[in-house]
Amino acid sequence: MRTGIATVCLSGTLREKMQACAVAGFDGIEIFEQDLVTSPLSPEDVRGMAADLGLSLDLYQPFRDFDSVPEELLAANLRRAEAKFRLMSRLGMDTILVCSNVATASIDDDGLRAEQLSRLAALAADHGVKLAYEALAWGKYVNDYEHAHRLVQTVDHPNLGTCLDSFHILSRDWDTAAIERFDPDKIFFIQVADAPKLSLDVLSWSRHYRVFPGEGQFELAKFLGHAVRAGYAGPVSLEVFNDVFRQSDVERTAVDAMRSLIWLEEQTAKWLAANPAAGGPEAGTAAGGAATRRRYPMELATLPQVAEPAGFNFAEVRAADAGALETLLSQLGFASNGRHRTKNVQLWTMGHARVIINEDSAGAESAETAIAALGFDVASPVIAAARAQQLKAPAVPRKSQADEEIFQGFAAPDSTEIFLCQGSPDGTAAWTREFGEGLEAPAAGRPGDLSAVIDHVNLAQPWQHFDEAVLFYTSALALEPQPYAEVASPTGLVRSQVMLTGDRGVRLVLNLAPLLQQEGTAPGPAGTGGTGQRRSYQEHIAVAVDDLVGAARAARARGLEFLQIPENYYEDLDARFGLEPRFLATLRELNLLYDRDADGEFLHFYTATVGSVFFEMVERRGAYDGYGAPNAPVRHAVQYDHLHQLKLTP
Amino acid sequence: MRTGIATVCLSGTLREKMQACAVAGFDGIEIFEQDLVTSPLSPEDVRGMAADLGLSLDLYQPFRDFDSVPEELLAANLRRAEAKFRLMSRLGMDTILVCSNVATASIDDDGLRAEQLSRLAALAADHGVKLAYEALAWGKYVNDYEHAHRLVQTVDHPNLGTCLDSFHILSRDWDTAAIERFDPDKIFFIQVADAPKLSLDVLSWSRHYRVFPGEGQFELAKFLGHAVRAGYAGPVSLEVFNDVFRQSDVERTAVDAMRSLIWLEEQTAKWLAANPAAGGPEAGTAAGGAATRRRYPMELATLPQVAEPAGFNFAEVRAADAGALETLLSQLGFASNGRHRTKNVQLWTMGHARVIINEDSAGAESAETAIAALGFDVASPVIAAARAQQLKAPAVPRKSQADEEIFQGFAAPDSTEIFLCQGSPDGTAAWTREFGEGLEAPAAGRPGDLSAVIDHVNLAQPWQHFDEAVLFYTSALALEPQPYAEVASPTGLVRSQVMLTGDRGVRLVLNLAPLLQQEGTAPGPAGTGGTGQRRSYQEHIAVAVDDLVGAARAARARGLEFLQIPENYYEDLDARFGLEPRFLATLRELNLLYDRDADGEFLHFYTATVGSVFFEMVERRGAYDGYGAPNAPVRHAVQYDHLHQLKLTP
Repeated sequence: MRTGIATVCLSGTLREKMQACAVAGFDGIEIFEQDLVTSPLSPEDVRGMAADLGLSLDLYQPFRDFDSVPEELLAANLRRAEAKFRLMSRLGMDTILVCSNVATASIDDDGLRAEQLSRLAALAADHGVKLAYEALAWGKYVNDYEHAHRLVQTVDHPNLGTCLDSFHILSRDWDTAAIERFDPDKIFFIQVADAPKLSLDVLSWSRHYRVFPGEGQFELAKFLGHAVRAGYAGPVSLEVFNDVFRQSDVERTAVDAMRSLIWLEEQTAKWLAANPAAGGPEAGTAAGGAATRRRYPMELATLPQVAEPAGFNFAEVRAADAGALETLLSQLGFASNGRHRTKNVQLWTMGHARVIINEDSAGAESAETAIAALGFDVASPVIAAARAQQLKAPAVPRKSQADEEIFQGFAAPDSTEIFLCQGSPDGTAAWTREFGEGLEAPAAGRPGDLSAVIDHVNLAQPWQHFDEAVLFYTSALALEPQPYAEVASPTGLVRSQVMLTGDRGVRLVLNLAPLLQQEGTAPGPAGTGGTGQRRSYQEHIAVAVDDLVGAARAARARGLEFLQIPENYYEDLDARFGLEPRFLATLRELNLLYDRDADGEFLHFYTATVGSVFFEMVERRGAYDGYGAPNAPVRHAVQYDHLHQLKLTP
Repeated sequence: MRTGIATVCLSGTLREKMQACAVAGFDGIEIFEQDLVTSPLSPEDVRGMAADLGLSLDLYQPFRDFDSVPEELLAANLRRAEAKFRLMSRLGMDTILVCSNVATASIDDDGLRAEQLSRLAALAADHGVKLAYEALAWGKYVNDYEHAHRLVQTVDHPNLGTCLDSFHILSRDWDTAAIERFDPDKIFFIQVADAPKLSLDVLSWSRHYRVFPGEGQFELAKFLGHAVRAGYAGPVSLEVFNDVFRQSDVERTAVDAMRSLIWLEEQTAKWLAANPAAGGPEAGTAAGGAATRRRYPMELATLPQVAEPAGFNFAEVRAADAGALETLLSQLGFASNGRHRTKNVQLWTMGHARVIINEDSAGAESAETAIAALGFDVASPVIAAARAQQLKAPAVPRKSQADEEIFQGFAAPDSTEIFLCQGSPDGTAAWTREFGEGLEAPAAGRPGDLSAVIDHVNLAQPWQHFDEAVLFYTSALALEPQPYAEVASPTGLVRSQVMLTGDRGVRLVLNLAPLLQQEGTAPGPAGTGGTGQRRSYQEHIAVAVDDLVGAARAARARGLEFLQIPENYYEDLDARFGLEPRFLATLRELNLLYDRDADGEFLHFYTATVGSVFFEMVERRGAYDGYGAPNAPVRHAVQYDHLHQLKLTP
C-alpha cells in the first residue's frame, strides 16, 4: 500500500513537515496549498527537497468552489486554475484535488456541472494535470460520493477522476459498498481520516475532530477494502484536520500518523479475508482453497500477529523515596522478595500481583515517584516485540546479565515502558528467581491474599498524546478501547478511557487530566515515544483480592494510611442503595467505597499517595465490569484536599 | 435582583467555592450534591459556614429520575427522596431541584406523572421542603418547560412549583413569552446560563459549553424579562457547566460569574423598558409618562450608563529594550514627543496615533516588551470608571503629580491596563502637554501620515479567561463581540475574536493562541484581574494611514525591517485576484499584503517583532471592514520561521 499524508495534518513549516514525513517513512505527501503559500521555499525548492527526501508529491490541494457557477465566474475560475496548473508543473506534480462547490455554486444542473468540469479537464490536460473531483460532505449540491462519480462518468475525460475521502463519506453514513463497482481508473486518489462519532455539524466535526485511523469510530477497513476490491492501487493518504495534532510535535505526530496507516493496512487485509466478494474468485476460496485467493492490484502488507495479553506480569514504580513505598506495600499485604542480584530494584509480591520498586533514579532531581513500566504476559514476546517495532514503537534497552531473562520493551506515548513477558499457565514468572538478595524478614501480620492479581493500572496521559496512546495500545498490544467516561474533579473533568482485553485479563485505564494539572508536562524528543515527559497527575495500581473487607482489616492492623472517605459519602450511598446497616457500618469503618449495577457489586479502597503513585485494592462481586466511576469524584476531591493541605502547611 | 450560583460552576472544594462566592458578592448559592458528598464538611458545618459568609442556601440539586416509573421503583425513589429531605433539614435548606426523568422513565402518562409528583410533594411537605420541578431539554418524556408547568398546575400542591433553566428552554428554541402567563407562586426557582450556538447534541452542549450570561448567544434578557413580568422575585442563579471554568481559579471565576449577573440585570431592565407589556400598565407609559411605569416585585438595579468609546486614546508598550522600540517607531514615521516630566515614559505620535513607551520595568527580570495598557476616549471617564467598578473591574492606581491629568484605570482579564480618557472633538489629547522633556531632533525623513490613527489592537488571551474577556469588554466598555474567526498557524489554530464599536472607532481583537504557545502563562492572583500573567504570544498595534504605499516607501527609506512575505504568496494572490501587474509589483517590492471583498480593499504590512510586540500599518479602501484574515496564516508562518531561526542560531 502506498502511504501518504497531507501536510495540513502536521504542525510547523512546510520544510519541517516534509522532513518529519520522510523520517516517519511515508511514500508521499499531499501539498496543502496554504503550507506552500506561506513558505519561503520556491516550488523548485520543494520539488528538489521532496526528491532528496524520497517523498513523492502526490496531490496538490485543495482547489475550491469551481463547479456550478455562472459563465463570468467560470472564466475567473479557469484563469485561477491555470495559474495553479503552472505552479504544479514547477512542483513536478500531476494531480490536483477539486472539491465540490460549497460557496459560490448557484446553479443546480448536472449537465452544466459536467460541461464545466469537462472544460477544466481539457485545460488540465493541456498542462498534464489530472483532476481528482471530490464530493465534500457539505457541498452545496454535490455532497455524495456517488454523485461525484456519476459526474466523472458523464464527462468521461482521461484527466478527470474522483477522490474518495473517508470522512466525507462516513460522516454522512453513506454505504461504501458502491465503491466496489467503480472503474478503478476513475479513482484518482483516496484520502482517509477517522473520527469519533459526534452529533456536531459536519463542517465543525471535519475541521476540528478528525483523527488518524484507529483513533475514532469509522469503519475504515471496510471503506478501503471496497476500494481495494474495485482495483484501486494508488496512494492511501491521510487528511486529518485536528486541533491537537496541529499543535503537537511534528515528528511525533508523523510517526503516530504512519502507525495508523500500517494498522489500517493490516485491518483492511483482515476485512478482505473475512468478507469474500460475492461471486468473485474469492467466493471460490472455500471450495478451491487458498491457492485461488484473488489478488488485487494493491499489495497489503501484514504484521506479525499477536493475541491479546493474558494479564499484567508486573508493574514497576520508579521510587524517589523507596522507604515510603516499601512501607505502603508491606502494609497492603505485599511480601518483599528482596533485591535483584545485579540491578538496584526490589520485588514485592502478593499472590500474582508483582510490583517492582526501581531505585535507580533515586536522588535524581526530576525523579518523582511514578509508574515507570508495565509488564504484560504474552504468548510470544519476540513476535509481539516484532509487531510493536513494525508499528514504530520505540524500543527501550533493558540492561541484563548473561543468565537473566531479557524482556522485549518499548516506550508508550506517555513514556511508560512496556515490557513483553513470557506468561506461564500457573501465573508465576520465571524472572522472579533473579531476586532474593538482601531479603529481610517477612512483613508482620498475616500474608496478603494469595489469589491477588493486578486488576487494572491507571495512567495519566498528556493532552497532546491521548489519541496517539489509544491507537498505540490498540495496535501494538491488541487492547480494545471502550467508550470513555468523564468524571468530575475539583480541578476539572477527567476523561477516563478504558482499554481492555476480551477476557478482562488486562484492564488499562488512560486518564486525561485537566490542563492545569498538566503544568510541567512538555513534549519529549521526537521519536522517543515521549521520554522526558513528566506527569504531575496521580496514577495508580489496583490489586484485586477475593475478600476486600478482610484485606482492609489486615492492612489497617499493619498501620496502612487509607484515603479518608467523607461521612457525607456514606449517607448518600445509603440514600442511593438502601444498604444493610451492618454492611454500611463496615464500609464506613474501613473507608471502603461501594458500587453496584445490574451485573454485580464492587468494593474498593485507596491508599495515600507517594509521589504521584497510590494503590487501590478492589473486590469484584458477580460480573461487575466497571471501576466504581460514581466514586471517582470522591477520590479526586479527597486527594485534592490532601494535596491542598500539604501546600498550606509546608 | 437576588443573585445566586450553583457550586458546580466553580473549581475547588465546597469550602473554597463558598468562600469565593461570598467574596464575589453573591446573595446565595445552590448546593450541587456531589460537592457536598465529596466534602469533609458536615451538613451542619456547611450551614454554619454559609451563615458566617452571609450566603443563603437557596437550592439543593439535583434530584434525578423520579417521575414516570413503575410502582416498585417509585417506593425506592421516595425512600431516596426522604433521605435527601432529612439532609436538607440539617443544611437548613427548603428547596430541591427535581429534574424530569431521563433514564428510568418507562411510562408516558401525565396522569401517573402528576400522581407521583403529588406523592413526592406530600412527602416534601412533611419535611418542610419545596420541589422545583424542571424539564430537562433531553428529558425522556418531559422536556418542554410548559409541559413541566402544566404538571405543576395539575398537581396544584403548595410544595410543588417549577424551576425555569434558560439553557433547557433556549437550547430547544422554545418561545419564552409563555412564562409571562405563569402564576409567580408556582415559579420556585430560576437558573440562567448562556451558550454559544452550536449544532451539537444538546446533552454534550449543556455539559461542556455553557457560559455565563453575556458570553454566549442566548436571548437571556428577554427570558428573564418575561419572568419578571410574571411577577417572579426569587433568586436568579447561575448554573453553568463549562470545561474551562471547572478548572480555572475559583475566585476569578466567581467574579466573572457575578459580573455576568450584574450585566444581565441591567440588560433585563433595558429589555423591559424597550418592550412594554401589551395591555399592561407599561403600555400607558408613552401617554401617561414615567410616573405610571409598572413596578414588578423584582427590583432591577441599574448601572452608570456609558456610550461606546470614540476611539483609542493611546497604546502603551512596556519596554525591556526601549531603544529597539524607538528605532521601530521612528522608522514607521512616528515622531518623538519626548519624555514625561515626572515618569519614566516617552510619547511617540503619528497623527492621532499615540504610543507610549514605558521604561519603568526595564531591567526587571520578567519584563519582556509587551503591550501594557490601552487608553480609550470616552465621554465621561468618571462615569465609565464607576460603571466598570460596579462591574467588578479591579481598579489600577496611576501615580500622578498635582497638575497632571488623572486617568481612571482598571485591569482587563488578560492583565492589560485599561484607561479611560477624556476624548476631544479634534482628536488631540490634553495630557500630551505633560511630555516634551529631553526632546531630541525630529526623526529623519518626511513626517508620517498626519491623519494616522490606531486602527486596531490585537491582544493575546490566556485560554482560561477568553470568555471572561469577552464579557468584560462587552459590559465594562460597551464593545460588541463579532462572530469569531479561526486562522491557521504553524503551531495550531488561532481563534480571533473581534470586539467593535458601532462606528468602528474602536476595534479590539482578542486572540486565543494555541495551548503550546501559552507556556509560561499562569493564573494571576484572584480578583486582581490577572496581574501576574505573562503572554508569550505575539500581539500588535495597527495604525491606519491614508496612503499605505507611500508610508511603506518612507519607512523603507528610514531603514524599517519589514516582515518578509514569501514570493509564493504573491503568486497565489495573483491567481486569486488577477491583479494589475504594476500594482502587484508594488506589493511584492514593499512586502505589502492585500485583501479584497465586496465592500472594498485592504493593504497592510507588518514590522519585525520586539519582545512580544510588533506593529502593523494598514490602509482601508472603500468600506472594507475586515483585518486581512486570509493573510494571517502568512504572517504567523513567517513569524514562526523567524523565531525558529533565532532559536537555531542562539
